[in-house]
Amino acid sequence: MAKFLTKRSENYSQWYNDLVLKADLAENSAVRGSMVIKPYGYSIWEKIQRQLDDMFKETGHENAYFPLFIPKSFFSKEASHVEGFAKECAVVTHYRLKNDPDGKGIVVDENAKLEEELIVRPTSETIIWDTYRKWIQSYRDLPLLINQWANVVRWEMRTRLFLRTAEFLWQEGHTAHATEQEAIAEARTILDVYSTFVEEWMAIPVHKGRKSANERFAGALDTYCIEALMQDGKALQAGTSHFLGQNFAKAFDVKFLSKDNKLEYVWATSWGVSTRLMGALIMTHSDDNGLVLPPRLAPVQVVIVPIYRNDEQFEAISRKANEIVKKLRSMGIRVRYDNRDTHKPGFKFAEHEMKGVPVRLAIGPRDLENNTVELARRDTLEKEFLQMEGLETKIEHLLEVIQKNLFQKALDFREANTHYVDTWEEFKEVIEKKGGFAVAYWDGTSETEEKIKEETKATIRFIPLEENTEEGRCIYSGKPATQKVFFAKAY
Amino acid sequence: MAKFLTKRSENYSQWYNDLVLKADLAENSAVRGSMVIKPYGYSIWEKIQRQLDDMFKETGHENAYFPLFIPKSFFSKEASHVEGFAKECAVVTHYRLKNDPDGKGIVVDENAKLEEELIVRPTSETIIWDTYRKWIQSYRDLPLLINQWANVVRWEMRTRLFLRTAEFLWQEGHTAHATEQEAIAEARTILDVYSTFVEEWMAIPVHKGRKSANERFAGALDTYCIEALMQDGKALQAGTSHFLGQNFAKAFDVKFLSKDNKLEYVWATSWGVSTRLMGALIMTHSDDNGLVLPPRLAPVQVVIVPIYRNDEQFEAISRKANEIVKKLRSMGIRVRYDNRDTHKPGFKFAEHEMKGVPVRLAIGPRDLENNTVELARRDTLEKEFLQMEGLETKIEHLLEVIQKNLFQKALDFREANTHYVDTWEEFKEVIEKKGGFAVAYWDGTSETEEKIKEETKATIRFIPLEENTEEGRCIYSGKPATQKVFFAKAY
Repeated sequence: MAKFLTKRSENYSQWYNDLVLKADLAENSAVRGSMVIKPYGYSIWEKIQRQLDDMFKETGHENAYFPLFIPKSFFSKEASHVEGFAKECAVVTHYRLKNDPDGKGIVVDENAKLEEELIVRPTSETIIWDTYRKWIQSYRDLPLLINQWANVVRWEMRTRLFLRTAEFLWQEGHTAHATEQEAIAEARTILDVYSTFVEEWMAIPVHKGRKSANERFAGALDTYCIEALMQDGKALQAGTSHFLGQNFAKAFDVKFLSKDNKLEYVWATSWGVSTRLMGALIMTHSDDNGLVLPPRLAPVQVVIVPIYRNDEQFEAISRKANEIVKKLRSMGIRVRYDNRDTHKPGFKFAEHEMKGVPVRLAIGPRDLENNTVELARRDTLEKEFLQMEGLETKIEHLLEVIQKNLFQKALDFREANTHYVDTWEEFKEVIEKKGGFAVAYWDGTSETEEKIKEETKATIRFIPLEENTEEGRCIYSGKPATQKVFFAKAY
Repeated sequence: MAKFLTKRSENYSQWYNDLVLKADLAENSAVRGSMVIKPYGYSIWEKIQRQLDDMFKETGHENAYFPLFIPKSFFSKEASHVEGFAKECAVVTHYRLKNDPDGKGIVVDENAKLEEELIVRPTSETIIWDTYRKWIQSYRDLPLLINQWANVVRWEMRTRLFLRTAEFLWQEGHTAHATEQEAIAEARTILDVYSTFVEEWMAIPVHKGRKSANERFAGALDTYCIEALMQDGKALQAGTSHFLGQNFAKAFDVKFLSKDNKLEYVWATSWGVSTRLMGALIMTHSDDNGLVLPPRLAPVQVVIVPIYRNDEQFEAISRKANEIVKKLRSMGIRVRYDNRDTHKPGFKFAEHEMKGVPVRLAIGPRDLENNTVELARRDTLEKEFLQMEGLETKIEHLLEVIQKNLFQKALDFREANTHYVDTWEEFKEVIEKKGGFAVAYWDGTSETEEKIKEETKATIRFIPLEENTEEGRCIYSGKPATQKVFFAKAY
């Protein structure tokens, strides 16, 4: 099975696509740009959802659900938002089909044209702030801390499974606050939730930062982000949290009566992560044999494969395997005994390797005699024979070790691929040849940022949250600069 | 607060609408026919989802996700399906907007017309079976037991919150099997899952049955259903499970190589429940004071309201209340201490009553002295003073009592409103005046069924699963009939 995966060194992009298909994560559908998330891929997404949802609730948020469709006119209400979002999107113009008078299937019924077109939500700020107007009258109604899990559609011309699809799944938080400080604090709280989740659960190290004006969300005053580095040296934005100021409150006329009895516009944030995280997960840890999953997100953490020549051996091994399964389950470990008689052990090994199961146990007749088991680690591909005695405790510990090891490996990779550069030559060398982050002084102008992008395709991935104290010269313009920022090519 | 709720006896439909709004469950949005599910309503839906999802997984199902959009031509492939579903639906015709040349907002870009229109899924059989063709080759790939949680759109002209909305949330299961018997068994297994869930969690008694040909799902050979009776005497279909035969396999050319090496078409089922269940929940248990929730689905099972005149009293009560909260939480009971200083106890009582919190505790200074607490049951509206000693165990027990009481009350109501009728006069009397189920012999023809519907608006809600042994005469045609069926007006 594994032999059909393109090697990363040969064609990284092809390797990624092969892996998504062969690990049964997702595939393209009959609808251009829309993917089917297969059961195995979806079960990983469910784990992501469940954990994030718990973290949102622990920080005081509630879920709700807002309409899929947004009236076209809503997008015109916030000037910069319309530029960013209302263009490439799916437009509903009719609400009925009829039998083709020529008898060839069905056609759109022209008599059922909508008075105002409906847009399939690319993001929900407009419809949500139109609703908040009815929910918010007084400071007592604030803060409003709401999240929704939903599908959204952005008509992308070039799509890639998980990374960029026309329809994708995400969560979008939309909060309303009485003060500017409180809204900024909320945006930062969520940035912390995101980075904690991505580092501790997905084992992906991320930088927290803010976006330059060019890269900001359409309608935001400030966009905070978490940024990760993939194995091919390209950066990936893994989540964003926006401070929206009073822009949407003004566009949708959402005011509240403050404690001092004054009518004021409400302050807002919005924030989201999507199925794109699946792309980050794959590209951070996986190898030429397939997917590598951090134990905390693995649908199956331990798989047991029996190796036998006859029914008698199979039964004896199964008794042992079922004992192990029972003990591991009682410890909260997700384990599967792969007793399919339709496939050989070699096939099973390759399949579980492809699907990234963190720990594989193989038990044969000899193992029963010796009271041993063969254990294989997916992250290091190391194998060892272990005594059955105390096996479950060792596995429990090992899963934690693997979780930490994956994070450390990714962190080491990122550090090795972060280059502090002082000259334009060095900068180009990094971006064009080495890959990874180029950290350099920037004069703070959009003009310089755009020129750098034109010449090298690198963008400012983020501006560090800590203020820089030393002054320097912009890597491109040579003008005085106060801030070192992180550049990279990006997904 | 409660005084603003219309009485059920005055106008049941208005009562329902008032309640949905005032209990903060949902509201209409700016998009015709689409609702906003508010946080409180959504938190009940989340409990429904979580429990059903667990039950699906226990019966071997996995979740996946399929595209929102379906190419128009897919609907023409299954003849009866297109008649039932492809008509009143949202049609995406364009994929881009542009600035209005006149400077007035944005308009549809006529250059961005889709070659083939996309339908926003009203149900997903077509896109899923188009996908299954790629997933199924051999009997080893079967059964395929997949569910998806999703939003769907059906362009309804007359909408009602939760009961009938253009967009709604649901789960749709789509399974593929090697044999007819296995597919029928699956449809029946799911019918059992649905009825167990609705009876044990929602405390709604349901009949399991099958639909007549007229009421069958478009494309199904057999539609099984669970049917409930609402307080106003109208029936509500709470869930359906369809045996689809080989219809979709033939339409999308999904064949498998059987164990005896023959190419055969795959057998199918599909099944779903939706946010409509929220409507059933409301209309089964609630009263003129507001929502009544079964404890197993209540986001808050117990609320504690402090009654105090000064800070000192408030602090003493809060110490006691927090002790109770801690103990109840450790027992897995969802409890809230409503210590808001912005609202008076009377307001809080009315609010929690409106929102259906099963148990309310009130603690005042006198209670602290006497070591008592006042407990109010939402289902019976009874109040009693209890000793603090052993309070938590009593509450735990009481929640089970309330759950059972709600079910029993609804069951008694249904039994009292089920009328076995032998003459057409009696039949009309039941349907037109009494309400509830009229159980009568039917000759088995669609013609008779349609005439009864025309004359009385009653439809066959279900045909009992048990075969009838006695023969009789059709209530309408007088022809010989072998089956008593359940008629009612329905939502």
